[in-house]
Amino acid sequence: MNFTQQNISDVSNDISKYVIRTPVLRFDFIDSLCGCNVFFKCENFQHTGSFKYRAAINAIKNISPQFKERGVITHSSGNFAHALSKASKELNIPCHIVMPSNTPEFKKSAVQYYTKEIIECEPNLKSREATTDRILNEKNLCFIHPSNNIEVILGNSTCAAELIEDYQNLDYVFSPIGGGGLIAGTSIAIDKFSENCKVIGAEPSSVDDAYRSLISGKIETNKTTNTVADGLRTNLGSINFPIIQKYVQEILLVSEQEILDSLNIIINKLKIVVEPSSSVVLAALIKNKSKFKNKNIGLIMCGGNIDFDNLKF
Amino acid sequence: MNFTQQNISDVSNDISKYVIRTPVLRFDFIDSLCGCNVFFKCENFQHTGSFKYRAAINAIKNISPQFKERGVITHSSGNFAHALSKASKELNIPCHIVMPSNTPEFKKSAVQYYTKEIIECEPNLKSREATTDRILNEKNLCFIHPSNNIEVILGNSTCAAELIEDYQNLDYVFSPIGGGGLIAGTSIAIDKFSENCKVIGAEPSSVDDAYRSLISGKIETNKTTNTVADGLRTNLGSINFPIIQKYVQEILLVSEQEILDSLNIIINKLKIVVEPSSSVVLAALIKNKSKFKNKNIGLIMCGGNIDFDNLKF
Repeated sequence: MNFTQQNISDVSNDISKYVIRTPVLRFDFIDSLCGCNVFFKCENFQHTGSFKYRAAINAIKNISPQFKERGVITHSSGNFAHALSKASKELNIPCHIVMPSNTPEFKKSAVQYYTKEIIECEPNLKSREATTDRILNEKNLCFIHPSNNIEVILGNSTCAAELIEDYQNLDYVFSPIGGGGLIAGTSIAIDKFSENCKVIGAEPSSVDDAYRSLISGKIETNKTTNTVADGLRTNLGSINFPIIQKYVQEILLVSEQEILDSLNIIINKLKIVVEPSSSVVLAALIKNKSKFKNKNIGLIMCGGNIDFDNLKF
Repeated sequence: MNFTQQNISDVSNDISKYVIRTPVLRFDFIDSLCGCNVFFKCENFQHTGSFKYRAAINAIKNISPQFKERGVITHSSGNFAHALSKASKELNIPCHIVMPSNTPEFKKSAVQYYTKEIIECEPNLKSREATTDRILNEKNLCFIHPSNNIEVILGNSTCAAELIEDYQNLDYVFSPIGGGGLIAGTSIAIDKFSENCKVIGAEPSSVDDAYRSLISGKIETNKTTNTVADGLRTNLGSINFPIIQKYVQEILLVSEQEILDSLNIIINKLKIVVEPSSSVVLAALIKNKSKFKNKNIGLIMCGGNIDFDNLKF
C-alpha cells in the first residue's frame, strides 16, 4: 500500500470541518523531568474524546453509495464505537454497533446517545466477529474495522500531520500501539511530512504482540487482554503490521505500574484528563529518557475517556 | 489605589521567567452549549496548579530587604500556601505557613514539599490570625495576605493581561470571587489593556458576600463557608472591594449543584482538570447564556487542585 503526501492532505481537507484541530500543549514540569522538549498532541480534546473520530468520519465519508441508506457496522466496546456512532449521525448514515455484554455502562451510554442499534454479544473476539458477520449479512451493511482499514489509517494520519505542521523540528513522535491503526497513520504522516523525525511505538508489556511481531517478522497474538490500557487490548492488524515494519524505529514496552504512574502525573500534575492508553507513551519516554536527552518529542495523547469511579491510582 | 498599564507590564516582565504563560483553550462543545465564543484561560496549568503562583512570586520578589533572611508568613490551607511555599523556595526566602488542623492531607503534603515551617492552628479565622500574629511577632517576619495585598493583586493581574493580549476582541472576562484578589487583578488589567471588555464576577450563592457587598456598598460577611468551591470560602478583602466596586459590571450567583454540573462538564467532557472554584465561572455563563449570546467570553480557570477521592460528581 503506497500513500502519498497528497493522500493525507486530501483527507485532512475532507474532514477538517468535522474534526477539532487539537492543541499541542507543553509542560515545564515534564521537560524538566524527562530532560527533553515534549509536545503533547491532545486528542483527548477531540470529538468523542479520542483520535478515533478522525478515522470514523473519514471512513463514513468514503463508504460506497450502496451503503449510504443501509448503513455501517463495527464491533467495539470503546472509543471507536463512540466515534463511529457520532460520525454516522453527523453524516446521516445508519450505524450498528456490536458490543460485548460486559461493556461498562458509561461507555454504553455514550454510544446510545448517537444510535439505538446496539447489539450485545458475548465478551470474546469469536462472539464479536460472529455477531457482526450475522448482522452484516442479514442487513447487508458496510463493515468498518476499528483499526485495520485504509480509510481509518488515513483518518488517523491527520493527527500526526497536524503535529508535524505545527512543530517541524520534532525528532521523534511516540504513538501507542493496540490494533496498530494509530501508529500506522502516524508513521505514514511523519514519513511524508518530515525529513528526519522518527516514530516510536509504546506498548504495555502485558499485551506486547506488536513488539514480538516486529522481532519474529509475523503477526503474534496476545494470550491475555490484561492491561489497564483498555484501548490497547486489541491484536495487531494485518494492514497495519507491514506499515509498522517499514516505518517504526522501535517499540518500547512499559509495565502496568509505569502506565499508572504516568497517568497519575498527567492527571494530577499536568491537569489534563487522559486514559491509560495515552499515558503509555509518557511512561515509555520517562523509562527511556536517557536515550532522548535534549530531543524534541511529540507524544500523542490518543484519548481521554476514563471512568474515574473504576480507577484508583 | 491607582494602577497604570506600565505597572502591570512591569510585573509581567518581572515574573515572566518564573511563571507559565498558560494556554487559552477553546471547545466547540462549549461554544455550542453556550451560544457564544468561549476562551478558557488555563491557570490550572500554572505552577502549583493555580493562578496564585503569579501572586506569590510577585509578592516574594517585592519584600523589603530586611525580610529576605527572616522570611515570610501567610495563613492558608490551600492554593496560596502551595504557591507561596514554592515561590519562596525558588527565590531562597524562608517561608512559614499557618494551616488549619483539618487541612486535607494532599494539600498539606504539597506544601511540605517546599517548606518545613508549617504551623497548625484551629480551623477558624480567629485562630488562623492569632497564630499568624504570634509567629510573625516572635520571628519578625513579613506577612503576605493571600488576596488582600497590592503585590498579590498585581501578580494576579498578569493572567488577564495575557488573555487580553492573546484575544483582543473579548467582550467579557469572567472571574470567580473569593477574597477578591483575582477579580481585582483581572479588573485592573482589563481596564488598562482593553477598550470595551467588561469584567463579570461569579460567586457561589452560599458564600455571596461580594454580591451583597456590591448592593449594600460596604463589606458584608459570610455566615458559612459551606461551598464545594473551597477556594472561594474566604471573605472579601478591604483593598479588593473598592476595585471591584469601580470596575466589575455584575456578580452572578450560582448554586452548589450548578457548580458541580459544570465541573462535571469540564472534567468529563472537556478533559481538563479544574477545581470547583474554576467551574463556578462556567456555571455562571451557562446559567445566563441568553445574556451573552454571540459574545466573545474569557473564562479564567483559576486552578486545578482537586482531590478526586473526596469529590463525587
